[in-house]
Amino acid sequence: MGDCDELSGFLSSAVEVAKRAGEMIATNFYKEKSVEHKGKVDLVTETDKACEELAFQFLKQKYPEHKFIGEETSAVHGTDDLTDAPTWIIDPVDGTTNFVHRFPFVCISIGLTIGKVPTVGVVYNPIIGELFTAIRGRGAFLNGSPISSSSQTELGSALLAAEIGIKRDKETVDITTKRINGLLFKVRSLRMSGSCALNLCGVACGRLDITYELGFGGPWDVAAGVVIIQEAGGCVFDPSGDEVSIMSQRIAASNGYLKEEFLDELKASCV
Amino acid sequence: MGDCDELSGFLSSAVEVAKRAGEMIATNFYKEKSVEHKGKVDLVTETDKACEELAFQFLKQKYPEHKFIGEETSAVHGTDDLTDAPTWIIDPVDGTTNFVHRFPFVCISIGLTIGKVPTVGVVYNPIIGELFTAIRGRGAFLNGSPISSSSQTELGSALLAAEIGIKRDKETVDITTKRINGLLFKVRSLRMSGSCALNLCGVACGRLDITYELGFGGPWDVAAGVVIIQEAGGCVFDPSGDEVSIMSQRIAASNGYLKEEFLDELKASCV
Repeated sequence: MGDCDELSGFLSSAVEVAKRAGEMIATNFYKEKSVEHKGKVDLVTETDKACEELAFQFLKQKYPEHKFIGEETSAVHGTDDLTDAPTWIIDPVDGTTNFVHRFPFVCISIGLTIGKVPTVGVVYNPIIGELFTAIRGRGAFLNGSPISSSSQTELGSALLAAEIGIKRDKETVDITTKRINGLLFKVRSLRMSGSCALNLCGVACGRLDITYELGFGGPWDVAAGVVIIQEAGGCVFDPSGDEVSIMSQRIAASNGYLKEEFLDELKASCV
Repeated sequence: MGDCDELSGFLSSAVEVAKRAGEMIATNFYKEKSVEHKGKVDLVTETDKACEELAFQFLKQKYPEHKFIGEETSAVHGTDDLTDAPTWIIDPVDGTTNFVHRFPFVCISIGLTIGKVPTVGVVYNPIIGELFTAIRGRGAFLNGSPISSSSQTELGSALLAAEIGIKRDKETVDITTKRINGLLFKVRSLRMSGSCALNLCGVACGRLDITYELGFGGPWDVAAGVVIIQEAGGCVFDPSGDEVSIMSQRIAASNGYLKEEFLDELKASCV
């Protein structure tokens, strides 16, 4: 897993990169963007690409022996397999649709896996000014203050975050809305922020109680969020109840109390 | 309609009240709250009541001849009919569920109708620090800078905000999710912020393109947002296509381009 000082150094590097990329995101947030389509509703901008390049350049120079997986590089070359080597997994702009529309839920997500285990996580929303950080075994923080997942024990009083994803074929949309329909009878209310990484951080800091997402882009959406939630006392798991795999494009998360009840409802809601 | 100087005075008073109530909301945001239920998922806190009292006290002293409609007063005594008299319509905490969960989309909404027409509007989110203001005929502003609704002309590239509302009976939930299902094939993506007033302001400042909500609490959710959107170049209307009535608990809104196409889809989606 690497020793204490080494992990602190990784976190510092990730925070420095996040702040630099965050400046770029904030500077371009209110400007007109040149938007390309990766799919019908899956967007990419110059800022996504520039932020990934900035992050890769900085981290590759510091850690030439590490591996790297990034959303935009993967879009061009395919996603590398995850190995045991220290691997930086980066979403340069999570919430690209929000970025294009200037909806203030955007972030850069930087996760580091060691032995395939998410070990360092940084999620930074430069528009609202929220920096989430965690190192495995050493707690989770929002702008430097410790955070913990909520103490809600009643699913009926839980705030759920979900997303409709990037597919618009009839089968996917029907399953998505049927699942939401089922869950609405069980939870207090539903939020859709448009950012998977920020939904995970929302559970970590207790402003959301549960979240799930299926069919998102790739490991860059969750690699940082997983360690941030776990260090905040929350749970991450596959919506089927299996152990989570950050490579699977399926994730669910809860505070420390609601996992089992939430899982029962997720399964009943056709996951 | 009242002359220019008078309207400026009303706006200044509304902003002063919003800032004072906003301080109270921000102070209590991260504290544990004592929550009461108005319905299964319809919540109220001490802060809702205290903010409404603060706002009413301040404005009644300044404008003793005006009328007042507030969410919490209406919850106890019923909602007064809207008359031609200048009427302050106030939601002390829009997004109470968000307030309880510390999800940062909360605001105070203060609208003034004159001759039943929404004429002055103030919506203030003290957590993110966004103050939306408008006077009829004089433009809309975010933190003092002019705002305008988006220039998006393609419904397929539009960002939609909707909410699931406060009813959880099977018929309502089924209609709500069926409508969302239909719209998902027509728009780019969907956001649910949990605040009707902030969704309207989102359309006003162009970070959302369209929104609708049916069965929300009352005129306090929309009285300010209506004039803010209209002054930003957007449209508000009843989801049926009729003229909007702020007393009807039904609203839809769009930028200046998407109204007709959005209406066609809303009607097709079983409104």
